[in-house]
Amino acid sequence: MQSLQKKASEWSGVSIDDAFAIDNADLFHTLGLQTFTTLSTNFYNRVYDDDEEWFRSIFGNSDKEKAIQNQYEFLVQRMGGPPLYSQRRGHPALIARHRPFPVTREAAERWLFHMGQALDSTSDIDDDSKIKLMNFFRHTAYFLVAGVEQKDQNLHTPGKDAAQKQHPCKNF
Amino acid sequence: MQSLQKKASEWSGVSIDDAFAIDNADLFHTLGLQTFTTLSTNFYNRVYDDDEEWFRSIFGNSDKEKAIQNQYEFLVQRMGGPPLYSQRRGHPALIARHRPFPVTREAAERWLFHMGQALDSTSDIDDDSKIKLMNFFRHTAYFLVAGVEQKDQNLHTPGKDAAQKQHPCKNF
Repeated sequence: MQSLQKKASEWSGVSIDDAFAIDNADLFHTLGLQTFTTLSTNFYNRVYDDDEEWFRSIFGNSDKEKAIQNQYEFLVQRMGGPPLYSQRRGHPALIARHRPFPVTREAAERWLFHMGQALDSTSDIDDDSKIKLMNFFRHTAYFLVAGVEQKDQNLHTPGKDAAQKQHPCKNF
Repeated sequence: MQSLQKKASEWSGVSIDDAFAIDNADLFHTLGLQTFTTLSTNFYNRVYDDDEEWFRSIFGNSDKEKAIQNQYEFLVQRMGGPPLYSQRRGHPALIARHRPFPVTREAAERWLFHMGQALDSTSDIDDDSKIKLMNFFRHTAYFLVAGVEQKDQNLHTPGKDAAQKQHPCKNF
């Protein structure tokens, strides 16, 4: 089976090197906490006000302020800042935490459309940081699409059933 | 629903502060790359040679060298070192990547037993680092148990079906 990150690169058109160029950039210290909170606020303002009802409804049961906090805390941590996300919620576990949502390619593109707009409307993000962030987001969005597709496949793989059946321990 | 990290803390007995005390310790620079590769090698040597067949068989279809590399690259990255794991495999996505395996409480305890032994048999790990690593491992093991249980629940939640049904877009 093709690995998650290979699918993500193929579908997003972003190589893994470009996606994780953020790790050689220290964007938290370049941009600062306030920029990330503003970016996530701009992003979710657009999402919760989206004309496309099918996309807006994905977030219908989620609290907007919580969504903003979850996102900027994750971004701050992932971009080299303090580990705000893990201190409050533990491991990011990106695929599992997106499991309740229908993460299709169409949803990924809509998410990326809003993020592109949010990046453009957030002041103090230089062009180089913007490119690095967008590559990270584009790759990650399709990584999640791949993760959701894998989940659906896993439910019916004979290999998994066979592995479970061969366990001799009843409590296992 | 109780959050993943609350379940992990309750079941493991490790608070989230203790679990992520690693983030204030910079263990990569304290211990160095070689210590992490040795730790993971010691760990998987024990796992692949476990007397308990039910536990050993979980890893039966996985390549031992790959398992060692995946683990030490993740640990190096998570403990403040270079992002070796993401550069090769993308996001850790811990729960999703453990989805093919039966991550029960019994398996978590057996995993932790071997890791405790591996830590003791790896030289140059001071007691304070050992405690921090073991708290991280214990909390994470039960975080994964909680993640797997959530997966099983999610398959049958009416909320999810309802959300899928209400989508008006056929391609969605």
